[in-house]
Amino acid sequence: MQNFVLHNTTKIIFGRDTVRQIGPETAAFGKKALLVYGKSNIKKSGMYDQVMTSLNETGVTVVEHGGVKSNPVLSHVRTGIECAKQNKVDVVVAVGGGSVLDSAKAIAAGAVVDHDVWKFFIGKKSVKNALPLTTVLTLAASGSEMNGGMVVTNEETNQKYGVGNKNLNPRVSILDPTATFTVPPDYTAYGAVDAIAHILEYYFTGQDPETPVQDRFMEGLVINIMESCNRVLADPKNFNARADLMWCATLALNGWTGAGLGMVGFPMHMIEHSLSALYDVPHGAGLSVVVPGWMTYQAQQNPEKLAQFAERVFNITTGSPSDKAAEGVKSLKNWFDNINSPTSLAMLGVPDLDIPVIAENGLGLAKIWRLREYNQERIESILKLCA
Amino acid sequence: MQNFVLHNTTKIIFGRDTVRQIGPETAAFGKKALLVYGKSNIKKSGMYDQVMTSLNETGVTVVEHGGVKSNPVLSHVRTGIECAKQNKVDVVVAVGGGSVLDSAKAIAAGAVVDHDVWKFFIGKKSVKNALPLTTVLTLAASGSEMNGGMVVTNEETNQKYGVGNKNLNPRVSILDPTATFTVPPDYTAYGAVDAIAHILEYYFTGQDPETPVQDRFMEGLVINIMESCNRVLADPKNFNARADLMWCATLALNGWTGAGLGMVGFPMHMIEHSLSALYDVPHGAGLSVVVPGWMTYQAQQNPEKLAQFAERVFNITTGSPSDKAAEGVKSLKNWFDNINSPTSLAMLGVPDLDIPVIAENGLGLAKIWRLREYNQERIESILKLCA
Repeated sequence: MQNFVLHNTTKIIFGRDTVRQIGPETAAFGKKALLVYGKSNIKKSGMYDQVMTSLNETGVTVVEHGGVKSNPVLSHVRTGIECAKQNKVDVVVAVGGGSVLDSAKAIAAGAVVDHDVWKFFIGKKSVKNALPLTTVLTLAASGSEMNGGMVVTNEETNQKYGVGNKNLNPRVSILDPTATFTVPPDYTAYGAVDAIAHILEYYFTGQDPETPVQDRFMEGLVINIMESCNRVLADPKNFNARADLMWCATLALNGWTGAGLGMVGFPMHMIEHSLSALYDVPHGAGLSVVVPGWMTYQAQQNPEKLAQFAERVFNITTGSPSDKAAEGVKSLKNWFDNINSPTSLAMLGVPDLDIPVIAENGLGLAKIWRLREYNQERIESILKLCA
Repeated sequence: MQNFVLHNTTKIIFGRDTVRQIGPETAAFGKKALLVYGKSNIKKSGMYDQVMTSLNETGVTVVEHGGVKSNPVLSHVRTGIECAKQNKVDVVVAVGGGSVLDSAKAIAAGAVVDHDVWKFFIGKKSVKNALPLTTVLTLAASGSEMNGGMVVTNEETNQKYGVGNKNLNPRVSILDPTATFTVPPDYTAYGAVDAIAHILEYYFTGQDPETPVQDRFMEGLVINIMESCNRVLADPKNFNARADLMWCATLALNGWTGAGLGMVGFPMHMIEHSLSALYDVPHGAGLSVVVPGWMTYQAQQNPEKLAQFAERVFNITTGSPSDKAAEGVKSLKNWFDNINSPTSLAMLGVPDLDIPVIAENGLGLAKIWRLREYNQERIESILKLCA
């Protein structure tokens, strides 16, 4: 096991009828809030009204900043920062999925500095502090509700970049599984893929070769995500299935699985971010294309770890490590197919001819994330395995 | 899944060469510290000197309160509270295992109130605040380093009682696996048993019958504790094995496994506390007697959950649920035997004739912990299964 510091300060309030707590939880940080949300979904679902009622009842004045899009963009973050500064808000409230939460984090960090917020993403500045953030989650996917990560796309430069900092952790996140009942099948599936991808980044790239405690935790989570996602797709209003999926997605990226692994990389996300930046594909849809391709590549580097994954997650017990690894990748890819998440560049509508351009775009992020072994040639060869 | 709030604020610093951080981490809370520790172990091991050097170097003045015994006693806590009050300390530093940490928590809570500290344990008062606590852990067992629980024995009344409160969480806990290298085989084994018992209390008594995410996490932890304990007993200075065991023991009782289970009971601990209170047996040694007996009783109540445990932890795949459950209990008991932790009252030196007295003592705690289904007769019948 490698040395680590673990200090996740986010308070999680999980379960039915918990959204009404957003008012008192937010009021603890101030009386004027910037409310960040997406498109019309939360208005249709009644979530917007619930949140506004709770905030109003506790005397919190709300300034609205709606309209966050999936693959959230820098320009909208910048206007949010201006709005937060002009109105001198005390606290940011995010109601939505990962895109909304990530935008809110960027706004919360950008509102307390004079420089452009993009500098955080390209490593020119680090986040020293931020406005307090409370959240109501409406999508099981990104894990942003209990970590300090944020991903934003600079649409001028086609860069989808992410950065993490403990000062970006939400103070409070409210997770009511019923808030995800109306998530359609495609985004439910993409969310599950995203959560699995987060786990696999840690599982396969951890610096320490011997981490049995973390391994079993992660293997259990992958199994549970597949099981609960299957149950949700069969029965979208199954509370327990939605709850399991939601909690697993949080656990997949809240730092608990990674504690003790040492340095990890996020190569699958690096490649997917390039796809999202260039073609605006949903993050999870991009990942279900990249993950099997990258795992096939990784099976050549470390068949034993892939074989362990295949054995423990898919009960593949016969054959050489390489055989098991290949069967494991096939099983996961089959599951992505079964939940109708795309598994080839073509299914995303991305032409194979673009591979060099995609790789070049990924290379920029690879440099910032210090994925030193990923050069143009290697990224291209992985992308070919995704074709 | 049941509703829950999860907010574990303890900062964990884990790994080699981390003890030297106790000075700066403690200084953040004040300049005068009460140092709580046990008998001579930390002086022999050099840990005492390391801690004192670090505290001194950061300008922290130390008032000492050593001499905590295993199954820590109320009288020693009371003198610690007097000492903390007289010296007006800002912060408490605990260096030791669960007994030391629990005593330090009781002192930290007792030092800020005017009433007797025992009132916290018998439910007459609740902990509203406490002096900040930092810890250096030297034994993988209790999980006290990352939770708000404390257990103390009132030696006048023979009551070993425990209570939990979020205000008792250590602010910072330092976990250096090398600090456990000198723990002898018996206490290493007892610690592993304690950690497994914590997991099983949650696993078998959770209110919600459907908690697959938490189940897999707990099953993985039990397997890892057995594996790492075996490795430690074979090779006491194996860093990775000590690290795995240490981290598992923390995870076993830091609230992560319990989130979503709803109400849980601690019936095995209730019965064991009676054994420790009356005969001063080591906690883990008492538990390895109680756990198989209680599980045999529980297999009659809920064979399916016992069978799941047997299947997933011990690969017992044939037979009826009751058959599997019985095999599972046998396998766990065999493992306790293998690591030389006692598995019968006789092996503890406790006469079967005392069963009524033990049950009566347990009953007092059963009332405070609201284990309503445990009356004198039931506790006696479980104790007979431990005989």
